[in-house]
Parts: sequence; structure tokens; C-alpha cells
Amino acid sequence: MAPAFTLGLDYGTNSVRCLVVRCADGKEFGSAVVNYPSGQQGVLLDPKHHHLARQHPGDYLVGLEKSVKAALAQARKQKGFDAARVIGLGVDTTGSSPIPVDAKNVPLALAKKWKNNLHAQCWLWKDHTSWREAAEITALAAQHRPQYIAKCGNTYSSEWFWSKILHCRRVAPAVFDAAYSWVELADWIPSVLAGVTDPVQIKRGVCMAGHKALYCAEWGGLPDKEFLALLDPKLPALRDRLYTQAYDATAAAGTLSPVWAQKLGLPPGIPIAIGEMDVHYGAIGSGVREGTLVKVIGTSTCDCGVVSAEKTVPDIPGICGIVKGAILPGYYGLEAGQSAVGDIFKWWVEGVCRGDAARHAELTREAAKLKPGASGLVALDWNNGNRTILVDPMLSGLLVGQTLHTTQAEIYRALIEATAFGARAIIERFREYGVPIDRVVCAGGIAEKNPMLMQIYADVTGCTMLVAGSSQACALGSAVSAAVLAGAHASFPAAQAKMTTLKKVSYRPRAAQQKAYNQLYALYRQCHDAFGGVNKSADLSRVMKDLLALKEAQQN
Amino acid sequence: MAPAFTLGLDYGTNSVRCLVVRCADGKEFGSAVVNYPSGQQGVLLDPKHHHLARQHPGDYLVGLEKSVKAALAQARKQKGFDAARVIGLGVDTTGSSPIPVDAKNVPLALAKKWKNNLHAQCWLWKDHTSWREAAEITALAAQHRPQYIAKCGNTYSSEWFWSKILHCRRVAPAVFDAAYSWVELADWIPSVLAGVTDPVQIKRGVCMAGHKALYCAEWGGLPDKEFLALLDPKLPALRDRLYTQAYDATAAAGTLSPVWAQKLGLPPGIPIAIGEMDVHYGAIGSGVREGTLVKVIGTSTCDCGVVSAEKTVPDIPGICGIVKGAILPGYYGLEAGQSAVGDIFKWWVEGVCRGDAARHAELTREAAKLKPGASGLVALDWNNGNRTILVDPMLSGLLVGQTLHTTQAEIYRALIEATAFGARAIIERFREYGVPIDRVVCAGGIAEKNPMLMQIYADVTGCTMLVAGSSQACALGSAVSAAVLAGAHASFPAAQAKMTTLKKVSYRPRAAQQKAYNQLYALYRQCHDAFGGVNKSADLSRVMKDLLALKEAQQN
Repeated sequence: MAPAFTLGLDYGTNSVRCLVVRCADGKEFGSAVVNYPSGQQGVLLDPKHHHLARQHPGDYLVGLEKSVKAALAQARKQKGFDAARVIGLGVDTTGSSPIPVDAKNVPLALAKKWKNNLHAQCWLWKDHTSWREAAEITALAAQHRPQYIAKCGNTYSSEWFWSKILHCRRVAPAVFDAAYSWVELADWIPSVLAGVTDPVQIKRGVCMAGHKALYCAEWGGLPDKEFLALLDPKLPALRDRLYTQAYDATAAAGTLSPVWAQKLGLPPGIPIAIGEMDVHYGAIGSGVREGTLVKVIGTSTCDCGVVSAEKTVPDIPGICGIVKGAILPGYYGLEAGQSAVGDIFKWWVEGVCRGDAARHAELTREAAKLKPGASGLVALDWNNGNRTILVDPMLSGLLVGQTLHTTQAEIYRALIEATAFGARAIIERFREYGVPIDRVVCAGGIAEKNPMLMQIYADVTGCTMLVAGSSQACALGSAVSAAVLAGAHASFPAAQAKMTTLKKVSYRPRAAQQKAYNQLYALYRQCHDAFGGVNKSADLSRVMKDLLALKEAQQN
Repeated sequence: MAPAFTLGLDYGTNSVRCLVVRCADGKEFGSAVVNYPSGQQGVLLDPKHHHLARQHPGDYLVGLEKSVKAALAQARKQKGFDAARVIGLGVDTTGSSPIPVDAKNVPLALAKKWKNNLHAQCWLWKDHTSWREAAEITALAAQHRPQYIAKCGNTYSSEWFWSKILHCRRVAPAVFDAAYSWVELADWIPSVLAGVTDPVQIKRGVCMAGHKALYCAEWGGLPDKEFLALLDPKLPALRDRLYTQAYDATAAAGTLSPVWAQKLGLPPGIPIAIGEMDVHYGAIGSGVREGTLVKVIGTSTCDCGVVSAEKTVPDIPGICGIVKGAILPGYYGLEAGQSAVGDIFKWWVEGVCRGDAARHAELTREAAKLKPGASGLVALDWNNGNRTILVDPMLSGLLVGQTLHTTQAEIYRALIEATAFGARAIIERFREYGVPIDRVVCAGGIAEKNPMLMQIYADVTGCTMLVAGSSQACALGSAVSAAVLAGAHASFPAAQAKMTTLKKVSYRPRAAQQKAYNQLYALYRQCHDAFGGVNKSADLSRVMKDLLALKEAQQN
């Protein structure tokens, strides 16, 4: 019998990618990227509100058709491929990125009336406009439903479902009233492909529902109406137009509708995997298993781990999600992250230094020559707030130690180190609460393209940094999920063993650098705890002096 | 009788300027600048030690001859000028900038053997390599001679005479041993002009001797030998080769030697005023009097005030010098300052942003459009340490509040604001100890060329900023001193009344901006006190949140 294939669709922040892989071995037969046409690199911004980030839902449909067709066209050129042998497809997206839709499951933004209204668009994951509402939900839950937030580090995020909906209710009541329901992008794309026209009939994934929408089987699904009414009197009615059950990746989101099958050139009726967050399928595509931390390093970083559902996982302060089935069926999915990583480097090199790609490469070379601590600088990685371990979007960047001779490259390196320190804080928090990490696998463009950063991460964290075999770990994970769902493999571990690999390159911690970085990390933590509100009687009187001493020691 | 003239020579960090003025009204008849030929813009640096800043003494002699001749040539073109009617000259320089000299008063660096040795050069004011020695002197004085440092804010600075000599003894003992004596640049130039060939015969100014060399009539001149021996066994012998008496500006440093009179084309035998620090004569040239604070704003900022010697001036913590006669005879001279001001802007615009003069102007225009607090940033002005009120060179820069959208212009403005906050801290410290400030006069290139900065200073400090009439206030002050010495005026106040003016422009504080800046200043002080070691149990948990709130308020 001819080999079987699945498709993975990965909706990122700036573009969508479609990957065509062979189920037997994960070999890529075709791949295509389509940039979103609207806004600034696909993101709708408001110069007056730096926290705002929206996306036009029409871009998703344009990208869907174009990327699938292009990837299939590429696959057709390869020997052994046959589109008729595509047996399933999977979708991952950014999240929490909720979309207001009408009663027919059509995004409001596709109607003429709402087309230009920023609040009627998809509320992109990194939109932080709803920080007040997040704080309100956190406070209210702490008082009335502490269990709701115990599983997300006791802090509900401004990046999540209810914060965004509540903020919309406050700042754009007309949009709120016009929305029949709200759908996560990760659920909406599969629902479109499956031809679902009633939002209540959409099969929603527990990955997005979990902590992001405060869904949990323990308390009967979404937050109860009494609690929602305390937030806003209009929310209980909305609850009835959302969902009562969410599913892990053992369930199908539906089957490919004849309309879309024809549009895309695929067999109708093939199963569509439950939608998951990009990094969760990315974790699967990177070979996540118990004891493995997968770091997807891009504009931001997401950290994913899994712990067998037969064990008891404690609530971990500051870890933003512990949800059964959120990543791998049969396991608790653990999620942490850093709100800006690549975005910080891009801000520095392109935004402040006004450098182009060549200058970025040059800065990387210059920064690579510096020893740890030799710049005398330490930075905090909070230009876009802190997702883990403080869960606080109302934080900002910090740089200490500038002299009159500090250079662009020194600051660039300090920013890379800052993100490495942030990564270490997350690993330490996991370990502190008994989650074992014996293997770190990195995925994403930065992990592949920036060996200096990877070596710094190894030196700072003391962990060997492995690199996922696929450059498209998220799309691959979606394709893996589809392959399991379609019966090409008996289980996720079996599919991962066949379909995922590691790159040969790895980065090991070096003793001398680790020593210097331990000193710098202590200074980072002093600033982190003081400005992050962990330590409210901080003695920072030695920070600059210790930085200067380390600088002197490392320069000679 | 034909009108009389005096010359003022002003040795700055990068160049020397000569000014020819008419004694009757201070009118400038000639002016010339000569850049020092050596090093980087006149400063010898060591890439391995960012604290190091030296200067080649040969540059001073080249600059002396060239600048005087050029200024006289220019004056000769003006009606009514006659070089034969130059009745005196005055000299001001940076300080503390001590030079190791041989027994003939020749700088070691002019000998072939020492020419390329950085330690044999002039130790420029902003050299901070001797921070360890400064701390040692402070600690030893606190224990054995508290009176020595009570008059310099209880902290002896790394910028000063004994710190530098002691550091030379430690890192370059051969240079130390070869040095017969050490002479401040402000004393050395007059001694050269007067033909003094024995260092012990040099008439030293109390301005440089005062707190910088710990000289005080109260304890019999320089620090006693017993104390010096505790620092280093070789220092007591050096004391005998320095001086026993220092003079205020009522005394002459000497008279112009025939050799130099011929070289320069000036009458021999005319009096040479006692050398003073540039900003002290600058204060005189800006019309300093009791109640007036003069701010000379350049690469760094110096603040000068005077209080009648008939009053009692308390020791003021962190105010780096209170010396009788240091500025005006008959008054205590009070000195404070900020280690880097223009240098910080230059670092940011040229060093980091790689901008040229046009870009600097453009950034200034962009920054001028921003409202106080609208960037969400606050910075500390410590890229070169803190001179007043913390007297600590081992501090460094800090920037808080960056987002992913922070721009070059926003950071530029935050740095300007940081220097304004530093200026406010100084004014508040003076007032706290009963020194009245009812008038602020600014001098220096930045005061004249950057109206945005001046307005920010007014808004931040709540004081109207006046601007000195002369663009060459330091050189003018030297010429005023020479005019008084030569008898053209009966007293300094009389000479100032005739020879100095104010510009018509002034900058008044604006209520709305003051209000926002009061909030920002509170955040500056929180960071200042925490990183400066004033508050060792700081609660900084609100800093970033308050910055974001102010940003939101000011953007809308």
C-alpha cells in the first residue's frame, strides 16, 4: 500500500505554515509559509496603546488556502507522494487568541460593519490591554474560587480568554453585544475546516480551555455563572453560548468538509485533530516526554513539560498552566514561558540600533567575543512583562551597569543573558516543586540559528541544550497528532519515536562560564525580586559594585 | 589712557581656550581654541580600564602658545586693542588633574624615558582608577582624622590628588619614585608662565589644595606626616616636596617671565592670577554671589555656590568641597557636581546610536515632543559614577521601563531627565543644610545650545534657569581675576558687576510638567537610594507599575 501522509498547519504570530509529512518516518514532503497580509507583519497595532495586538481573521483563511496548496504542490514533486493518501490534518495556533464570532461561527471582523474595529478582530496572544481585568479576575478568584487559579500559578493572565472578553465588554460594549460566542483560534480553524456553523457545536480543545478559559472537569467545566456574574452581569449568558465539554488529542475536532476538501485538493472526510496551542504541538514534535523540558524559542519562549496523569502534580506558584491532556493525552501538561525573547533582540537591534540583518549578524559576532560579566551589565527580560514566574504584564525592562563606554554589542549580549536568566528561573521553579528535568530540547528559529545564544543558555542554566530535529516542530507535532488520530500509529509515544528526531548539534555547559554566570544570576535575581515585588525590603547597594568587580575580573 | 585688557586661559577636557577681554566692560576682543593633539579628543585611554583618563602635558604647552597667539591676533583686528595694554592674565583648568614633575618642575612625561608611560602623564580629573585608594583614604580618615573629610561630604574622591598619587605609588612605583613633586594643572600652567623651576616654590591655589589635597589652615596645611605614613611610608617625604601654604585669588601666582612674554607677544612682568579650577572661575564669570548657584553644564556638571566667610557653614554630607577662598576671596566656596552629563548624551547618541551631529539634532527635536513620563522610562545619571550627593565612583548607569517600542529619542530624553533629577538632588541637599539658593545661573555649551534640556531642568528643579552672558564663562572668570589682581577693579563684586552679564533668555518652571516630574523624581529617588546604598531595605515593587501608569496618563 502506498505510504500515508498527514498535514500540520501552524498559525504563528506573523505567518502560517503548512507541512506535509510521511507518517512512517516524519519525512517532510512539502512545506510552505504565507505571511499575513494585514497590519505590521500581520499584527494590527495602535500607536497609543503599546499593549494592543490584534489580528484580522480574514488573514487566517487566505493563509490557509495558500499555504496548503503550496505545500501540496511541493509534495507532488517528490516521488511517492499522493494527495489522495493524506489521511488527516492537525492545526496549532498561537493562544490564547480568542475571536468574537456571530451565531453562524463567522468572525465579526469579516462583516463590513466591524471590519475596521480593532476590538472585533482576533485578540492576539500578546495583547496585554486587559491587564486590569486580569488583576480583577485574579482577585475575585482568590476571594471566591481559589481553585480556579491554583492551577495557573495563582495569577490569571491578561493574555487569556476571560480577561480579553471582559476588557472587550468594558471598552467596546457594542462588539461584545454583537458577539454570539468567542472561539479560540486553535478551535476556530478546525471548525472551519470541518464546516461547523454553530459555535456551540465546535469541539474545543482542553489545551486552550484548560487554565486559559478556567475550564476543569473538577468544577464542571467553565467557571460557574455565579462567579461570572460577579465579573459582569452579561457573562453568565455568554457561558451558555460557549461549551460544556473540552477534549484532549484523543478526540477529533471533526472531519474535512467537502467544500474545503475541494478547495484544498484533499480527500473529504479525513479526520481533523483537536486544535492545540502551537508550542504544545511543538513539544510533541520535539519529542516531549516525562523528564523532558521543551523550549520553543521564538519572539517569545514557551516551556512545556508533561507529568503522568497517574501522579499528583502540586500547584506551582507562577507556573501558568497545569492541565490534564493539554499536551499529551494521559499526562498533565505543564506550561511556562517568557513574554518576549526574540522580540527583545529585535527591539534592540532593529528598533533602537536601527540595524539590518547584516548588522544583526555583526553584533552577534561581536557579542560572541565577550566573556560572561565582561560588559559589567545585567538586564531584566521584561520588555513585554513577565509571564513566568511572576505572571505580571505590568513589568518592564531594566538595564544596569552602563558606563560611558558601553557598546551596542554589550547591551545585545546582556539582553540575551537576561532571557537565559529568565529561563533558569523557570527551570529552578519546576525543580523546586519536584518536576524532574533531565533533558532540555529547544525548538524554534532562534534555537537553530543562534549558537551563541544556545551556548549562553547552557552556561547559564547548567543544562545541555539539545535541538529538535525538525525546523517546524509545531507543524510536525500537529501532523503527528493527525497521524495518531488517523490510526497510522498506536500512540503518541510510538508516533514520536518514528516521526521526530534531534539534531546532531548540542550545547554543553562550560565550568568557567557557569561560575561567572552564577554570580551574574545572583545579581539578576536581586533585581528580579526587588522590581518584581518578591522582596519588598531589598538591599541593592552591592549590585553595581559587584558588576564592576566581575567586569574587572573578566576583562583581564 | 588707552583701555586695559586681561587674558583668560581655560584648560578644558578636550581643548584650551584663550580669551582677550576689556577690563572696563568685559567685552571680548579675541578668542581662540586649540584642541589637544594627543589621544582620543585629547584624552589618553586604556581600553582595558574604562576608569583610566590621562592627558599629555606637552599638549598644554602647544595649546598655550597657539591659543594665546591666535586670540591676540584676533584682538589686534579690533579697534582700540593694544597688546601692550594687557595688564594681567588668569588661568583655570580641569581638576583635580595632578602632574608628576621632576625637581626642575618639568613633567616626567616630557622626558623620553616616560613619554609613553600612562602613569607619568597628567591624571585627568575624570580618571577613576584610584577608587580603591579613595575608599582607603576615606576609611583611614574616618578612623584617625575625621576633620579631614568632614568638609568634603565625609567621602574622599577617586578624582582627587592623594587618591591618584597613592594609586600611582601602587601600580607604577617607578613613576612615583621618579616624581620629585606633584603639581595640579591649575598651578602648573601659572608656574610655567612665571618661570618657576622649583616645584616647592610654586604658589599653589587654595582652590585645588582645599579639599582635593586635604589642605586646611585649621590643621596646618596638608595632612600630617603621621597620617600620610599610615597610607604609605613614602608619602611623608613627598609632603616636604609639595607646599606648606596655599593662596586665594587675592594673591598672584607670579609675574609673566621674559621668555614667555616674548613667546606670546605680551608685556613681561604682568601679574598672573592664582590658578583655579575651571568651574570656580566659571562661577565668577557667571556672576556668582551669595544665594546664587552656578551650574557649569558640559561633559560633566559642576555646581558652585559661595557663603560669606563670616558665617558658619555646616559640613554637608555628600557636598564634595567647602573651602574658604576656593572661589571668591572672603567667602567659603561650595562645590558639588555630576560626574557625567554631556558625556552621557554623547555616549548614547554617538557611542550607542552611532549618530552624527545631524542625528543628534533630530533626536533633540523628537525628544522635545515627548511629555514628561510619556516614555515610561526613568534612568540614573551614573554612567561615570556619582560625585554628589553619594560621592561614589563605583556606581553605574541604570535604565528602567523599556518596552518593545521604546525609541532612541525616548531613552535620550530619559537620560537628560536623569541628569536633571541629579541636579535636583544637589539643590535639595544644599537647601536642607541651610544654604540659600534663590538664583540659578547656568553656563557651558549645553546651557546655551539645548533649550529642551534647560526647560526640563527648570521643570524638574522648580527653579528658573538663567544663562550666563558669556559663552566662555570660565575664561572670562580667569580674566576677571586677573583684572582685579592688576587693579583694574577694586574688588571681585565690582569687577563682576562691570565684566559679567546674563543672557536675555531664561527658562521658567511650568506647573503641569513640574507635577509629572515630581512623580518621576520620586521614582528616580527610589532607584537612587536603593542602588546608591542609602536605603538598604528598598521596596521597588511599584516602580515599573507607577512608570506605566504615568506613561498611560501622559500619552492620552
